[in-house]
Amino acid sequence: MKKIAVFTSGGDAPGMNACIRAVVRTAIFRGLEVYGISHGYDGMIKGSIKKMQSHSVSNIIQRGGTILKTARSEEFRTKEGRQKAFDQLKEFGIEGLVAIGGDGTFTGAKILHEEFGIQVIGCPGTIDNDIYGTDYTIGFDTAVNTALEAIDKIRDTAAAHDRIFFVEVMGRDSGYIAIECGIGGGAEFVMVPETQTDLKKVVKALKNLRKTKSSSIIVVAEGGDEGGAETILEKVKQKIQDPEKEFKVTTLGHIQRGGRPTARDRVLASRCGMAAVDGLIEGKTNCMAGVVNGDVVYTPFADCIGKTKPLKEDHLKLIEILSI
Amino acid sequence: MKKIAVFTSGGDAPGMNACIRAVVRTAIFRGLEVYGISHGYDGMIKGSIKKMQSHSVSNIIQRGGTILKTARSEEFRTKEGRQKAFDQLKEFGIEGLVAIGGDGTFTGAKILHEEFGIQVIGCPGTIDNDIYGTDYTIGFDTAVNTALEAIDKIRDTAAAHDRIFFVEVMGRDSGYIAIECGIGGGAEFVMVPETQTDLKKVVKALKNLRKTKSSSIIVVAEGGDEGGAETILEKVKQKIQDPEKEFKVTTLGHIQRGGRPTARDRVLASRCGMAAVDGLIEGKTNCMAGVVNGDVVYTPFADCIGKTKPLKEDHLKLIEILSI
Amino acid sequence: MKKIAVFTSGGDAPGMNACIRAVVRTAIFRGLEVYGISHGYDGMIKGSIKKMQSHSVSNIIQRGGTILKTARSEEFRTKEGRQKAFDQLKEFGIEGLVAIGGDGTFTGAKILHEEFGIQVIGCPGTIDNDIYGTDYTIGFDTAVNTALEAIDKIRDTAAAHDRIFFVEVMGRDSGYIAIECGIGGGAEFVMVPETQTDLKKVVKALKNLRKTKSSSIIVVAEGGDEGGAETILEKVKQKIQDPEKEFKVTTLGHIQRGGRPTARDRVLASRCGMAAVDGLIEGKTNCMAGVVNGDVVYTPFADCIGKTKPLKEDHLKLIEILSI
Amino acid sequence: MKKIAVFTSGGDAPGMNACIRAVVRTAIFRGLEVYGISHGYDGMIKGSIKKMQSHSVSNIIQRGGTILKTARSEEFRTKEGRQKAFDQLKEFGIEGLVAIGGDGTFTGAKILHEEFGIQVIGCPGTIDNDIYGTDYTIGFDTAVNTALEAIDKIRDTAAAHDRIFFVEVMGRDSGYIAIECGIGGGAEFVMVPETQTDLKKVVKALKNLRKTKSSSIIVVAEGGDEGGAETILEKVKQKIQDPEKEFKVTTLGHIQRGGRPTARDRVLASRCGMAAVDGLIEGKTNCMAGVVNGDVVYTPFADCIGKTKPLKEDHLKLIEILSI
Repeated sequence: MKKIAVFTSGGDAPGMNACIRAVVRTAIFRGLEVYGISHGYDGMIKGSIKKMQSHSVSNIIQRGGTILKTARSEEFRTKEGRQKAFDQLKEFGIEGLVAIGGDGTFTGAKILHEEFGIQVIGCPGTIDNDIYGTDYTIGFDTAVNTALEAIDKIRDTAAAHDRIFFVEVMGRDSGYIAIECGIGGGAEFVMVPETQTDLKKVVKALKNLRKTKSSSIIVVAEGGDEGGAETILEKVKQKIQDPEKEFKVTTLGHIQRGGRPTARDRVLASRCGMAAVDGLIEGKTNCMAGVVNGDVVYTPFADCIGKTKPLKEDHLKLIEILSI
Repeated sequence: MKKIAVFTSGGDAPGMNACIRAVVRTAIFRGLEVYGISHGYDGMIKGSIKKMQSHSVSNIIQRGGTILKTARSEEFRTKEGRQKAFDQLKEFGIEGLVAIGGDGTFTGAKILHEEFGIQVIGCPGTIDNDIYGTDYTIGFDTAVNTALEAIDKIRDTAAAHDRIFFVEVMGRDSGYIAIECGIGGGAEFVMVPETQTDLKKVVKALKNLRKTKSSSIIVVAEGGDEGGAETILEKVKQKIQDPEKEFKVTTLGHIQRGGRPTARDRVLASRCGMAAVDGLIEGKTNCMAGVVNGDVVYTPFADCIGKTKPLKEDHLKLIEILSI
Repeated sequence: MKKIAVFTSGGDAPGMNACIRAVVRTAIFRGLEVYGISHGYDGMIKGSIKKMQSHSVSNIIQRGGTILKTARSEEFRTKEGRQKAFDQLKEFGIEGLVAIGGDGTFTGAKILHEEFGIQVIGCPGTIDNDIYGTDYTIGFDTAVNTALEAIDKIRDTAAAHDRIFFVEVMGRDSGYIAIECGIGGGAEFVMVPETQTDLKKVVKALKNLRKTKSSSIIVVAEGGDEGGAETILEKVKQKIQDPEKEFKVTTLGHIQRGGRPTARDRVLASRCGMAAVDGLIEGKTNCMAGVVNGDVVYTPFADCIGKTKPLKEDHLKLIEILSI
Repeated sequence: MKKIAVFTSGGDAPGMNACIRAVVRTAIFRGLEVYGISHGYDGMIKGSIKKMQSHSVSNIIQRGGTILKTARSEEFRTKEGRQKAFDQLKEFGIEGLVAIGGDGTFTGAKILHEEFGIQVIGCPGTIDNDIYGTDYTIGFDTAVNTALEAIDKIRDTAAAHDRIFFVEVMGRDSGYIAIECGIGGGAEFVMVPETQTDLKKVVKALKNLRKTKSSSIIVVAEGGDEGGAETILEKVKQKIQDPEKEFKVTTLGHIQRGGRPTARDRVLASRCGMAAVDGLIEGKTNCMAGVVNGDVVYTPFADCIGKTKPLKEDHLKLIEILSI
């Protein structure tokens, strides 16, 4: 292995830069040449490929976003598009790829490997934490803390006015972010896609809360079965006529995607990045470097994409018990 | 003056607790008895009045929200309601009031003074910074920094995806928050109620931005003439058909109301709180203690409510020049 | 089990309040009476024991420090002292204890169990992360992020002046905090107690760094074999005569002990707190509730105190490779 | 005016980058060519001068430190050194300078103007806020908030252990930072260079505080007459023999120099930067662009360097009253 390339794809996540840095520095330390591909698969097709030096990644470890950018690519979904992409890689003599992203990224990487035989290892870069093969994804810890900080601020104003707030957090198919910041924020309720929301139960609890004249926060994962926070608020308002307590809604949105990555995300990103390069050198391919139970492991892409990571059972119980 | 009372009213703002603390400790230091009224005018009518000690306000200077809570009061708008309120104050022997809040709070305080002759001094507690008689209101600096932190995070993800983000910030009738975090966040555009928004100009600038394949942030004050961020996005989308660049919207919402107050807000709150008590002792009334050009000044309520504070001219120019 | 008590002891750690909250609310949810003991073992001896309600722990989940305080107790080291302590517990009818703290706390709890047979379960509350039986201790993640934030700021000024900074972090016998924020901060060197510091190697690297006219950060764990940051700086200065590059030292100190706990610390604290109460109900004793590999486990105090948790091997390698 | 240059000098301060950005973008907007000089006067002598484009300053508004770096220059203190510097400027055709820094920077700028007639305007970049001609300096607000955050964390641990903490903050000749974060942190005492410290009074207050078994924080400006925090602690310990309460010291150090600038610093930096360029275009020279009472003003360097800005009287009174 003499030349490798790295790129970021899919939704951005804080820590992606730390991962890029680890890939570049490990590669150089091991005597490889390393290239950066801008704008994900789209840039791969267009040949946006540049050689990287050690100083290319100086002072990026604390920055959110990704210096290599990311982009969608309809063209990559076609065989012609992927052929173009591979031709570009061949042009630069690239023998191995590190693909930092989520499910979508790995799906593309897997096909690239199957169609052209190029070695490729992935790093789990997404705030959703819904990737099998790693306990945590790069960006999850930061997103949770960003949401938690926001919930702490909302708690201040909710308590001042004795209001009930519905706060929507990201996590399209999974309730990971919602659960963590629900527990951390002392939320009274958390609605996640993994469990069916009993709207009657919510309404009943809200009616009780209103009597005690206190503030409450209900965290809603964006992909829950009853809809996002605004939708749920509407449904609830219909069932609770009496405006004795005020309901408010906040959708946190894209602040959860950015910001200075936390310590955990920087360390996880560094470990995965280094492991991806070392994996390529050892001949590994078609797998993702993640951390499970504290140790670096390599998991086949098929499993990363196919299998699910269930929520911890005691987490949902915690919400119920601790919010009395 | 032997007994005074303090309360918070209107929307909560970070720094209100620091103000309450300053009022309580200054009063005790000067040998007065001081009472706290919970839930604003509503609590005043209900007699939610409790004596406060020095330790009642220990460790609250760093906390957002208000330990005295706040609430609306329809009853206070009636003469009977206000008579009840005054009777409660008389019951406790309260001779002077410190009213921490905004326009609405001072309107109520002014009437209370006019109808019953009770001494009352206000402190400017609101994140909107639209009160005449003080360069900055308690809570403004914190709200701006909260919005700015959010914009910094949005910048990360906007840059990663080459997107254009519309970010809505608070400030119903004024563009103060929008301007400050627009400049601080390097926004390409800021839409404020004080100036008429030229939508054609916005669309034209957006079309140019899209060519340079970069990210942009447009800050929208919630009370702008063309509507909030979501409304403006819709109007803009209709005029720009080609989906070459993605538009996204984030409404920051109530996170701007809470959180740990900044240094400026704590110091301003402390100065105003101490000045309010000293003002009552000196016989002042029907006015607000604020800070103008670095010094404490007392401004008649009528002026605080009636007059406006224009935006600084060079601020709007800054946005235009610095976002090239 | 009808009555239990909870206390915090040893050095404080962010997240202790979240743990107290979880203990109190789980106990009440399970139908127990729960008491809070102030000032650790000293308060236990003095009978500073008060019944706690659900609202006693409202709004403390986001706060650093501990509402139950902590204190040293020479008296508890004597048999008479411990007899007094037990008598107090018996006076209140307390049958089970939750002890939140570190090694010292568990040593005391173990003896209390052995001498008087009272049921006691511990929760790992210390920033040092040097307790066997849990992957992370409550307060560690927050301390690391606090140190990391400080290092990020120091990086700004180091880069501006092309200086070399020695930054001392906490962790008397272990290098956990140093390693994590060393990796996260992109430090050029990390000195930890677990490995022997080769001062010649440090000096050589520093001489090289000076040539490239860049900034460097060297993280020093307070308990390293060559001493703290100030001591090491002195030793290094003697070997490098030429003042071409400036050396500076910062000892982060006690800021690492306080502050708003992170999401991880609040969730870990909540899980351990709930598990401690449930463990007492199930008859468990003389052990600590911790989280290993994502699951709650109970580890005998003897092991918690006696065994060590080695640093991860790839962590030290990361520092070397990524700082080229 | 066709070509100007900008540089940063002296101690770095958060917001310097925002100022550089404003200078560059205003210059380009006005049709000038703008150059950046690295490493202050040292770089000026060595000819480290590079043309800057609009994108040279993209995404730096949120970053601490300075992209143009800073450095001391013994050579610049000599006439030969300054002649070299001027020759370099002439080589590039530079007609005007923007000097971002503090007293030392303006002293050098003033001499450059007097000896060679080159137009030069300064911007107040220093965390110390001790420059006459501007209410606040660029970097002061951020440094105060950094120190305040640290004090908030120390308060948590001080309260947990009932300890007394001496916290040393920056501000060699002035107590501005100490006063602001002393008030904001609810400190019991603040020791500043502007007033003579009565050590007996401190010892007496400490003896009282110890009786009430509470925590206390004493903020010490590094340049106080009785020395820094560690020195004062030693003097105090000698007078208070009985170790009933623990004393601890924390020296915040260089974290106060770095970090993400606050909103105020970014806006102030932008206003000053734009005003400096416009000032050069209007023919102004030998002065500093600052903000006094909300408006941009130009103050002769001689006054900036020579005159002092006294602390506000009610600030010291606030500390005394509010810490009862």
